[in-house]
Amino acid sequence: MKEDIRVHDLMRDGLRILQDPERFCFGIDAVLLSGFVPQKSQGRLLDLGTGTGILPLLLSSKTDCTELVGLEIQHESALLAARSVVMNGLEDRISVVEGDIREADKLFPAASFDIVVSNPPYIAPGAGKCDPTDPRALARHELLCTFADVAHAAAVLLKPGGHFCLVHRPDRLPELLQTLTEAGLMPKRLRLVHPYVTSQPNMVLLDCVRGGRAALKAEPPLIVYEARGVYTEEVRRIYGQT
Amino acid sequence: MKEDIRVHDLMRDGLRILQDPERFCFGIDAVLLSGFVPQKSQGRLLDLGTGTGILPLLLSSKTDCTELVGLEIQHESALLAARSVVMNGLEDRISVVEGDIREADKLFPAASFDIVVSNPPYIAPGAGKCDPTDPRALARHELLCTFADVAHAAAVLLKPGGHFCLVHRPDRLPELLQTLTEAGLMPKRLRLVHPYVTSQPNMVLLDCVRGGRAALKAEPPLIVYEARGVYTEEVRRIYGQT
Repeated sequence: MKEDIRVHDLMRDGLRILQDPERFCFGIDAVLLSGFVPQKSQGRLLDLGTGTGILPLLLSSKTDCTELVGLEIQHESALLAARSVVMNGLEDRISVVEGDIREADKLFPAASFDIVVSNPPYIAPGAGKCDPTDPRALARHELLCTFADVAHAAAVLLKPGGHFCLVHRPDRLPELLQTLTEAGLMPKRLRLVHPYVTSQPNMVLLDCVRGGRAALKAEPPLIVYEARGVYTEEVRRIYGQT
Repeated sequence: MKEDIRVHDLMRDGLRILQDPERFCFGIDAVLLSGFVPQKSQGRLLDLGTGTGILPLLLSSKTDCTELVGLEIQHESALLAARSVVMNGLEDRISVVEGDIREADKLFPAASFDIVVSNPPYIAPGAGKCDPTDPRALARHELLCTFADVAHAAAVLLKPGGHFCLVHRPDRLPELLQTLTEAGLMPKRLRLVHPYVTSQPNMVLLDCVRGGRAALKAEPPLIVYEARGVYTEEVRRIYGQT
């Protein structure tokens, strides 16, 4: 198998990440989620479905978490994530575990993480065409895990009071809120991401707390572009360009 | 009891409404909801908790509904609403019914409305101080009906495929979506209302369909002010100022 791996500069603390254009590359979703995670987070962090490791890498710089674990089911993605960790010299803080989100409760002790993050597959089974042999399809479609699997894993692995931060699609918002609430993860912050201020949102960012009371704070809209091809100042800041 | 009734110009088709500053006056919530209701709506419309009748009055102009009914439990508000209907010469299209939302399923035949709208009390029992003898408190707090009562009434009275449009508070969004879904009212459109583009939203507009499939379209943010005291062009248009 030929390899066409590229090094991508994350424009933050000299961080770099390995990407394989033939497989799944990280997108703006993960970057915006990294900016939505409470920056004062500390302790142990778990990324459910880490792909090539973008979230643990960015969050090692953006938060004070001492241990960041990325769980990934696809062998080649997990391998690339582990290589990026070594390339950045972050082996003491970040580890990559190859495994299944549906078995996460057997891979890690219950209530052992302070924060769980996830940029899970967005597309429900049966909605939209998909080639199950394409690694990009596995990252985008709920072929290997449903959202309920992700929420269940987060609920079991978080300490009480711990945060679960995720990015998903607004069209699934009613189902997301219900699944999270039923899993005991109370939605505390919600932010809609709009390409332009006049656009429908194409992402929703959610921050939930394990246990606690129901009281959601919706946040100002996160607008991505101020003009075609020009990020808003806030998004430039999240990307580390200012 | 002294009366201090004022006539307020609705700046639309010559419509006017009677308001009593000592009691509950309509707010921007009702006006923005009137702009969110599908303007091509027709047939029979019901407003659950019509207050002084702002929504039937505005929607008689903004939609093609042939019959608009306002249900209101507070006697003085219902009376004022009925007087406004007469003042506008709209007795043939708008009627005001004095009654309890919790008994709406006995006041009207099941499945007899094409569209139901509501600007219900926002504040859950026990959340926030309230004087139950103040008519304004009855309109703002869930003293006489809960959100589940409102959703139940809408679900029973709507024809299959009919729309329920409402305005509420974003901090209750998870509960609203769950209650609506459980009542068989599937959320189809959601819009957050932000005072400024940089502010948290203080209202959420929802459009649900009785029956049908789950698939929510979130809409662009509705921004109220472009500067202090200056409405955005969209809000000026909803108010009929442009």
